Amino acid sequence: MDERKVLTSYVLRIRESLIRAGVRQVVVSPGSRSTPLAYAFAESGSVRMHLQTDERSAAFCGLGMAKASGEPVAVLCTSGTAASNYMPAVTEAKYARVPLIVLTADRPHELREVGAPQAIDQPGLYGRMVKYSADFPIPEERAESLEYIGRHVQRAVSIATDAPAGPVHLNIPFREPLLIEFGAEDPGISFRSVRRGTMIPDPEMVHWFTKTAADAKRGLIIAGELPPGFDKEGFWKFVRSLGWPVLADPLSGLRSNISGDAEGLCIDLYDAILKNERFKREMAPDTVIRFGPQPVSKPLTQFLNGNRPDVYIVVDESPSFRDPYHLATDHLQCMPEMLLGIRAENGPSGYASLWSEANRIAAEETRRSVHEGTDEGAMAGVLFAEMPDGSDLFASSSMPIRDVDTFFMNTERDIGIFANRGVNGIDGVVSTAFGVQAARKRPAYLLIGDLAMLHDMNGLIASRFDETDLTILVMNNDGGGIFSYLPQAGAGRYFEELFGTPTGLKFRSLADMYGCQYDAVESAYGLRQALLEPKQTNVRIIEAFSDRQVNLNEHRKLWQAVGERLDAEWNR
Amino acid sequence: MDERKVLTSYVLRIRESLIRAGVRQVVVSPGSRSTPLAYAFAESGSVRMHLQTDERSAAFCGLGMAKASGEPVAVLCTSGTAASNYMPAVTEAKYARVPLIVLTADRPHELREVGAPQAIDQPGLYGRMVKYSADFPIPEERAESLEYIGRHVQRAVSIATDAPAGPVHLNIPFREPLLIEFGAEDPGISFRSVRRGTMIPDPEMVHWFTKTAADAKRGLIIAGELPPGFDKEGFWKFVRSLGWPVLADPLSGLRSNISGDAEGLCIDLYDAILKNERFKREMAPDTVIRFGPQPVSKPLTQFLNGNRPDVYIVVDESPSFRDPYHLATDHLQCMPEMLLGIRAENGPSGYASLWSEANRIAAEETRRSVHEGTDEGAMAGVLFAEMPDGSDLFASSSMPIRDVDTFFMNTERDIGIFANRGVNGIDGVVSTAFGVQAARKRPAYLLIGDLAMLHDMNGLIASRFDETDLTILVMNNDGGGIFSYLPQAGAGRYFEELFGTPTGLKFRSLADMYGCQYDAVESAYGLRQALLEPKQTNVRIIEAFSDRQVNLNEHRKLWQAVGERLDAEWNR
Repeated sequence: MDERKVLTSYVLRIRESLIRAGVRQVVVSPGSRSTPLAYAFAESGSVRMHLQTDERSAAFCGLGMAKASGEPVAVLCTSGTAASNYMPAVTEAKYARVPLIVLTADRPHELREVGAPQAIDQPGLYGRMVKYSADFPIPEERAESLEYIGRHVQRAVSIATDAPAGPVHLNIPFREPLLIEFGAEDPGISFRSVRRGTMIPDPEMVHWFTKTAADAKRGLIIAGELPPGFDKEGFWKFVRSLGWPVLADPLSGLRSNISGDAEGLCIDLYDAILKNERFKREMAPDTVIRFGPQPVSKPLTQFLNGNRPDVYIVVDESPSFRDPYHLATDHLQCMPEMLLGIRAENGPSGYASLWSEANRIAAEETRRSVHEGTDEGAMAGVLFAEMPDGSDLFASSSMPIRDVDTFFMNTERDIGIFANRGVNGIDGVVSTAFGVQAARKRPAYLLIGDLAMLHDMNGLIASRFDETDLTILVMNNDGGGIFSYLPQAGAGRYFEELFGTPTGLKFRSLADMYGCQYDAVESAYGLRQALLEPKQTNVRIIEAFSDRQVNLNEHRKLWQAVGERLDAEWNR
Repeated sequence: MDERKVLTSYVLRIRESLIRAGVRQVVVSPGSRSTPLAYAFAESGSVRMHLQTDERSAAFCGLGMAKASGEPVAVLCTSGTAASNYMPAVTEAKYARVPLIVLTADRPHELREVGAPQAIDQPGLYGRMVKYSADFPIPEERAESLEYIGRHVQRAVSIATDAPAGPVHLNIPFREPLLIEFGAEDPGISFRSVRRGTMIPDPEMVHWFTKTAADAKRGLIIAGELPPGFDKEGFWKFVRSLGWPVLADPLSGLRSNISGDAEGLCIDLYDAILKNERFKREMAPDTVIRFGPQPVSKPLTQFLNGNRPDVYIVVDESPSFRDPYHLATDHLQCMPEMLLGIRAENGPSGYASLWSEANRIAAEETRRSVHEGTDEGAMAGVLFAEMPDGSDLFASSSMPIRDVDTFFMNTERDIGIFANRGVNGIDGVVSTAFGVQAARKRPAYLLIGDLAMLHDMNGLIASRFDETDLTILVMNNDGGGIFSYLPQAGAGRYFEELFGTPTGLKFRSLADMYGCQYDAVESAYGLRQALLEPKQTNVRIIEAFSDRQVNLNEHRKLWQAVGERLDAEWNR
């Protein structure tokens, strides 16, 4: 067998094993050392190749695809700092539990740690940020070598998708020449499939859970981010039977597709409600069941921390359940959907009615605020109201996700909501949105601040290589708006310099560079008008200018209005 | 002591210890968790603070400053993926031997691995990419805690600057509230200083070296990248006494400030010369002394590999000397300058004269090529010819550094040349150039391709916060030009898609966005005209459009012309 044939068998085994394990998408960043695998992907009909030149953006794009589809997605880059640029997305993938399959081409052993160009100590590069890491052997003709790599590829993908899902890393060395034979086929993979069981609750667990739920006087369900494909219908049946209110984080997906089942029990505006001291004091739950991670809302956390419930159950298939505020008292480790069959038939509790009424009041005030306001919050509200049925929203970290929490209200429309909440970085946001759109294949909207937009302008490069349908609403308040909400804002000295981070940059030129349709708006009215105009380019940028101080004041005004209405209600 | 006082003492101890250890520059990326240290830096008169919102760019900026100054430079970011974004620059710093002091703010232990926002497993994040890593304790009032952190800061900087220099990581947890007292002072650091000895050659080493040099018939010196402050005068005295030719990589700095001492012995055009088969065959050296890493030139590597010298000495203060092609026979571990006092008094060898003559011929052809050519190479040559005395050049990886190698010819002018050759990434290039300019404080020129420019457009954000003087020449050949020179270019299928990477992007809009003076040129003549115009903004962008195929042809034409002249010379 000649070298080229050996190389070809090797990369085909990797590709075919990835496909067998369920990988259908790969994001490739151009480079030399990764040529053999890139060529193999390019000529495959079973795996779709996407291009992105910046590896940091590429990995976030892969992350977005995997996050939105729930399927493992591969990323491929050349050796050296290319691989280092994957680190931010790998980190996010670990904490967001996204099955990202990281493939890094490497130089062979003789070129490692000897000062060769683009050669770094790649095996184990991502340390504890990946669930699994293997340094592959150089392509050789021994059969056991092909068996080894093929099986390890499938094992790696299986580990990545096992709960909690997360990134894995395969380091793949190639010697020159880097050319493969085109049109070759893999003679056959002996390892056929991984069939995974389902972690169901034991009878004892079900018994305990049923009894605990029945004993609760003031039961509350908290729903954080839920995975794509989560059984919402089953969830609402379960909730109806319990009769408990559900505090639904925007990333739970529960605020969309609202139907009669959920009516009244889906509390979307707890963030505003829980700024009221009296409500917080009087409405402490005795029992909480949480699905998904702890929600975005800080008032919710303070509410729970100030009135620690006797029972706080976290349902999570992973032993590493997430509990940042040490609230949990019990951890039910099973596939969350497997609990939803339990029925209590309580009927809505009085406690639920109080939540429902508060939510109705908050909804009135929020609608009024969106209608009358001119600030970022009102503009966000306009965006959410105008988004068509069958579209998706990606929210950047920092203020956007908080504005989604405050202003994205229960709707019958089918709108998916996504964000990077593993680590809440403002990096890679544009690219993750691209990835989400690529996976969902329907119109996507990105709500993002100016700093996050600057951080991942490179994400836009993807629009040169791939179809997409993305409307970006950039909230330009010239700097780090969220810091205005922090205690250190009071320090005054150095604040504007260090946290305001005003760059004075506007995005019209950026839109020019990428040939994107562009509009600048300065009010909620202007934004509504702009959104009514047809979309003409695959990426459209709407830049909304706002003032950080006005934003802060308007947010406070809304919270105050809700608070006053709730106080009045209470004293009635 | 109250919490705020404890926090203040803690961050002041870190800051003052950094200053005592020689840190004078810090690049800060805005964020919340890093507030206490950021405020401490902001109010210090002894350490200069630079801002950059993208942590990836920030770390490269710090790398550039440290590289150009030879001094340790700190970078500071908040917790989470912010820290992950440092990975590419940390990787480059490791292999380029740059003392980068990485300070990552972290959340306290109780918020780690529990699903808290912006909290990742930060201790040890950079794995084997850093020389040293410490996870600091939470601020507390015990005296031994302050002693520990202060001493470890100084130790970390000392490790970073010890040969081989490289990055170190200090992970620093903070609990809320994050406010310090302004105007406070450190009551006194007990650890005063690190005084490092010099690694000098033993008498036996000197004896062996002197004898080996004397025995050589065809001795050759190779100079790779040399550190800032390298004793060039001493070097040329040493070379003159040996009478050997010096193949001077552009990053050696030896091609600038050329004086009588170096005349004739500084071979700058070996890359073109060594494409001649006859020359390669007949001019094999018997003895090589190499300072710095292996040069950029591939023909040089092939020359040495094809005619392996009996003696190949690498002089390097670090035990991990760099020898990618396994050429070294002897490693002299000592401070390189300490060998330069050795005198042989050979006078120029006949072997040296042949090199010198070949170099004269290559210089004629190269000048002609720059004069007559219209391609990227000619344009690069024009830039180098027009750069003023007392300026600096930063060359991107990929084609730019190779064009510097081919077209940057010996000059009396004082021109510093820099590049990221640790890993040769095309990431972080703009930011590293910013850092170099900030450290050198004189006009800087960046030669960069379109893909590298796209990769680090965020580097330009620094121009909003800091003074600079940078002229960027973007060679826009619409994609990955260097791949045209690789064997896989022949594959045809998928080539343009995977390696050409044409994005169709132009940089006029980018210049608009950042308010940079902008010119588009399409010829060497046009570039010369543009360079004659005065610079009006702190960053100026000149975009030179070229064609990848023409570039390839023109490069080949030059190499062929040099080859033919050398053949003729040989047969004379």
